[in-house]
Amino acid sequence: MKSEQKPLILVTNDDGITAPGVRALIKMMNEIGEVYVIAPDSPQSGMGHAITINSTLFCEKMKIDDGEQSEREWACSGTPVDCVKLAITKILPRKPDLCVSGINHGSNSSINVIYSGTMSAAVEAGIEGIPAIGFSLCDFSYSADFLAAKKFIQKIVRESIKNQMPKGMVLNVNIPKLPEEKLKGIKVCRQAKAVWVEDYVERKDPRGRTYYWMTGEFKNLDKGKDTDESALEEGYLSVVPIQYDMTAHHFISDLNRWDF
Amino acid sequence: MKSEQKPLILVTNDDGITAPGVRALIKMMNEIGEVYVIAPDSPQSGMGHAITINSTLFCEKMKIDDGEQSEREWACSGTPVDCVKLAITKILPRKPDLCVSGINHGSNSSINVIYSGTMSAAVEAGIEGIPAIGFSLCDFSYSADFLAAKKFIQKIVRESIKNQMPKGMVLNVNIPKLPEEKLKGIKVCRQAKAVWVEDYVERKDPRGRTYYWMTGEFKNLDKGKDTDESALEEGYLSVVPIQYDMTAHHFISDLNRWDF
Repeated sequence: MKSEQKPLILVTNDDGITAPGVRALIKMMNEIGEVYVIAPDSPQSGMGHAITINSTLFCEKMKIDDGEQSEREWACSGTPVDCVKLAITKILPRKPDLCVSGINHGSNSSINVIYSGTMSAAVEAGIEGIPAIGFSLCDFSYSADFLAAKKFIQKIVRESIKNQMPKGMVLNVNIPKLPEEKLKGIKVCRQAKAVWVEDYVERKDPRGRTYYWMTGEFKNLDKGKDTDESALEEGYLSVVPIQYDMTAHHFISDLNRWDF
Repeated sequence: MKSEQKPLILVTNDDGITAPGVRALIKMMNEIGEVYVIAPDSPQSGMGHAITINSTLFCEKMKIDDGEQSEREWACSGTPVDCVKLAITKILPRKPDLCVSGINHGSNSSINVIYSGTMSAAVEAGIEGIPAIGFSLCDFSYSADFLAAKKFIQKIVRESIKNQMPKGMVLNVNIPKLPEEKLKGIKVCRQAKAVWVEDYVERKDPRGRTYYWMTGEFKNLDKGKDTDESALEEGYLSVVPIQYDMTAHHFISDLNRWDF
């Protein structure tokens, strides 16, 4: 396959350009397309769809390893969404055929999609008319096994290229924390209804001022068997197609009966 | 009306607790309920659904004016979503009956809902099971006329209380930049399909390093007459009901035909 025939794949993440999760994803994508990496220069977990509007952005070319993409990597001082916007506007030679984000260190299933920098980068690509996939491994550990799901990750990417995933469609892929031989396969799902119940730890700083650390417990409120949470529990990779029209269409007729 | 019968209203925003937009909203809400204000201590525009997980949060009681709520205000060092989470978990005496966010200095119509700290605060309240409304005025000016739409804003809030808006439903209200007498009324809409086309301004810092400022142009791709953009153009306040299930339900059957 000639270089110009290869799909152009933009790789980004939210854990930062040197995180093991994105390094693993880059290797996997080098076997499929021409990879460009534009990723945050520092961890950006939980940044959601934040963009940098009141401050400057730096974006520097760097060489991190000897992979095929090694001359096509940039570290950006902004958020994951900034990375995608900058990549498309200033760095890439043409609109990418696909954007992949991750592999995130930790789950982005169910409601986590909305807090996640990894998924927000993928959603931003979607908004800009680029098919996109976010990958997350349900394991926070720095030394997590990101290769266990390699064949499934590559299958999802190849299928999305083969089937010409519609412009703007985004997939949220979560991978259970299991060794390769225990992974049962891939399940298409919907986003589970879930919530975080916060518990702020209260402390005093050396000057006596109160400050807080956010902690919380994840609560799945959804008994459905067709959800991402259910698929992950059963040992499957969950694939949720994602869109960004937030309109609650079903409530429009109710609202029209209000006395406005 | 006895104090305990008044609805408890949580007010927040993303422009910061001293911004004229939130000060105007607080005054309007004092006429309707028992107001608690927990808002960012500094501007947080464009923060989307970001949360603070790798850093500490300060949250200090303060007295800004002599309004009825003056003893019930806190400035928080975090994002708008942090404010809502902290308010519910640590500050409010009980779960609020309503959360209102804004009035934002600038539009949050169409795709802006996803970048907006103002709307993300409202959406967070929704996730936590609290009816919520975000208000935004299509005028970035510090001295914008936030009172022009007072009667409509109060009507929307009163209707949402009277009609017992479902738990977790969120309204995205945008207000055209018009004098009171030119405001035509309220229209229930869907989110317009739109996009920002970025253009990064490139500069050199004193050490010769390249940096960027994000600029962009808003592009409405939607000719529909039932959108928020259309309503605003016609001189109406737009009301879009918002939900946070990001699943592209219509694409699940397509995905199930892929070779997974």
